[in-house]
Amino acid sequence: MATEAKSAAGASEQGAFGKRIMALADRLAQWSEISDGLTCTYLSPAHRSVAAELRDWMRQAGLVTKIDAVGNVIGRYAAGDPGARTLIIASHYDTVRNAGKYDGRLGVLTALVLVEQLQRLGRKLPFHLDVIAFSEEEGVRFSASFLGSSAVAGRFDHGLLERRDADGHTLAAAMRAAGLDPAQIPALARRADALMGYLEVHIEQGPVLLEEGLPVGIVSAIAGNVRSMVTITGAAGHAGTVPMARRHDAAAAAAELVLYVEQRCAQAPTLVGTVGQLNVPEGAINIIPGRCELTLDIRAADDATRDAAVSDIMAEIARIAARRGVRVESRQVQRTAAVQCSPRLQSVLMEAVARAGVTPRRLPSGAGHDAMMFDGLTDIAMLFVRCGNGGVSHSPREIITAEDADIATRVMLDAVLRLAETS
Amino acid sequence: MATEAKSAAGASEQGAFGKRIMALADRLAQWSEISDGLTCTYLSPAHRSVAAELRDWMRQAGLVTKIDAVGNVIGRYAAGDPGARTLIIASHYDTVRNAGKYDGRLGVLTALVLVEQLQRLGRKLPFHLDVIAFSEEEGVRFSASFLGSSAVAGRFDHGLLERRDADGHTLAAAMRAAGLDPAQIPALARRADALMGYLEVHIEQGPVLLEEGLPVGIVSAIAGNVRSMVTITGAAGHAGTVPMARRHDAAAAAAELVLYVEQRCAQAPTLVGTVGQLNVPEGAINIIPGRCELTLDIRAADDATRDAAVSDIMAEIARIAARRGVRVESRQVQRTAAVQCSPRLQSVLMEAVARAGVTPRRLPSGAGHDAMMFDGLTDIAMLFVRCGNGGVSHSPREIITAEDADIATRVMLDAVLRLAETS
Repeated sequence: MATEAKSAAGASEQGAFGKRIMALADRLAQWSEISDGLTCTYLSPAHRSVAAELRDWMRQAGLVTKIDAVGNVIGRYAAGDPGARTLIIASHYDTVRNAGKYDGRLGVLTALVLVEQLQRLGRKLPFHLDVIAFSEEEGVRFSASFLGSSAVAGRFDHGLLERRDADGHTLAAAMRAAGLDPAQIPALARRADALMGYLEVHIEQGPVLLEEGLPVGIVSAIAGNVRSMVTITGAAGHAGTVPMARRHDAAAAAAELVLYVEQRCAQAPTLVGTVGQLNVPEGAINIIPGRCELTLDIRAADDATRDAAVSDIMAEIARIAARRGVRVESRQVQRTAAVQCSPRLQSVLMEAVARAGVTPRRLPSGAGHDAMMFDGLTDIAMLFVRCGNGGVSHSPREIITAEDADIATRVMLDAVLRLAETS
Repeated sequence: MATEAKSAAGASEQGAFGKRIMALADRLAQWSEISDGLTCTYLSPAHRSVAAELRDWMRQAGLVTKIDAVGNVIGRYAAGDPGARTLIIASHYDTVRNAGKYDGRLGVLTALVLVEQLQRLGRKLPFHLDVIAFSEEEGVRFSASFLGSSAVAGRFDHGLLERRDADGHTLAAAMRAAGLDPAQIPALARRADALMGYLEVHIEQGPVLLEEGLPVGIVSAIAGNVRSMVTITGAAGHAGTVPMARRHDAAAAAAELVLYVEQRCAQAPTLVGTVGQLNVPEGAINIIPGRCELTLDIRAADDATRDAAVSDIMAEIARIAARRGVRVESRQVQRTAAVQCSPRLQSVLMEAVARAGVTPRRLPSGAGHDAMMFDGLTDIAMLFVRCGNGGVSHSPREIITAEDADIATRVMLDAVLRLAETS
């Protein structure tokens, strides 16, 4: 039966899947809040236009479509049996500010093109296949991420409805203004027993596949993170008059911490640590920094590795503070658990990758993805696509190739057909 | 003759000089641009009121007074011989924002109280003694410092007249609005052959005297500085997806530089180095810093020591850049030479300090002072007064004691009388 799967997937021998994905991504990128780049945040006019366009495309592909109460665009490729379980293939269509064209959207378009091919082949599945374009993942407008996927996973935080955007509009008001009914959100939650799995294609947003010369890779786990805000208080002083030995320089203490984080997080393969914000508030060229503020973001593919690093970093902070006579306050602002991808679905993807002639490479995802929301609800798996330009994402410089998008679509189609054979 | 000097200086056995200085400093601090602290910048209403008050006090002390074309308040305690040379004792009356009460003003008030005592004793001098309260030293309003002393020293930069403050007023317009005539500035310049020296009392603005338990100290040299703006450009990236070994983190490179500056500048006694500004522009908790900006301020009591440090720091910057694959741009924005105090005047002050029962301690000034403007024009010397609260200055927490102000006045009076005997 793998042969049938392979021949169906092989229908794109001319690379038609990839070319179509690139063209559709370009089309979607024309809807933007800014004139000289791509910004498409939750429920902006551009965002609503993208939703409408996606629904049209899904409808044209023969799917039963709807836009749900949080703005997710859903297209169902229905099984013959209405009581069948559902396989979700999804990602998000919102973007960060000044974004690339593929983060999120690549996953939506891969799913769309895959279903177009199923439709073309007249291939029915023994399960419903829901293509979902989640309305919100990046958290830009309301500083709250995963609004779309959390609703479908039954994990929507209703407290967020009163949160305000930069213009003072609440989330609830923004939804109502867009014709969405927040009261309907609870009804969007899928039941575990109605699901057979969740798959997501996403651009890697890092350099691993690029540097290893691989078009796609199979995600092994999605890293959890610990995020903290750190404030170091030393003693401000005149840059000319306080001898070096008598200083309590908050920036020098911060510098030690930055280098410790870097060195400590280099000690385990999937571990990464970042000081992304670093600032001496009201610093002046001739004043010894009395205060320095910084952020910590520590991630690993497993929580034990991450927590060991966080623990060592906190101990080092205490040592730096004691040695330098500075005060350090650290406030943990986020803690998410790592999510392991399903071994079964990973195997299906790895076999499909191998059948596509690509060495199957497993790698952890350091970034969060909609897939995380479905952890514990159903089996999840993700396929990463090589990110060009050194692995840059969240940037207009984010690129992929049509060839890689094509391979990803064929792998996903192969995997879906394989699941159809074995379910 | 030292006996006579000592008895004149000893007239403050009850600490009256110090008490009066503290009271006058409190009076001056009532003129402020802010309601909850002291800010008195060039030609503000508060600044003009302080000038008027100082002139009144000088007049009451029997001095021949004037406010000159840059707003300096000058009181002359004239010699019998109109053709005698002039000893200047001076400091400044402007302040930084949210200042302490003694930076600058202590020197003006010490000179005033000293002359009041000469007047009281009827003690004539063989030289003119000019008490000068310079109008501007801190550089707050026009980002240009030493406006007052540079005019008297004949070093006023006339190009500054077109510089604008935050409200868009030029320096020339601000002066005219205050009734001052910029065209008269060149005439303020003193001639070298008409001067016999320049003395200045100033709060130390550092912790050295405090930690050594000394009320006053003799300044050996005023440090020169080299100031640079440094921009480090690395590669921004997703904090979760770029492995540690593949990063080009601009903030981590900056951290290395901060620690190198700290370590290198601890290697010579008068050398200090400060990274006062440190910032990741538009940094985000989940983005690897692609850019980091920082400032360097390197000072030493002699230029060779400072330049050796600057050279090592620049070499280290190049090594960091090469090793980390980041780009570093460094722009030198200021370079001032160190100024050596007159050995002769230092000796006079050291002897007077010893006669006051205090161990004479020489120390360099890491901060710039009006005295620097007179380098090359006449002999200069400075007396530092112990700074309380750990040595903090440029802060409402800046304090001195009446006892220390009293000692400083007695030392200065003794020194002036000693100069009168030997000139």
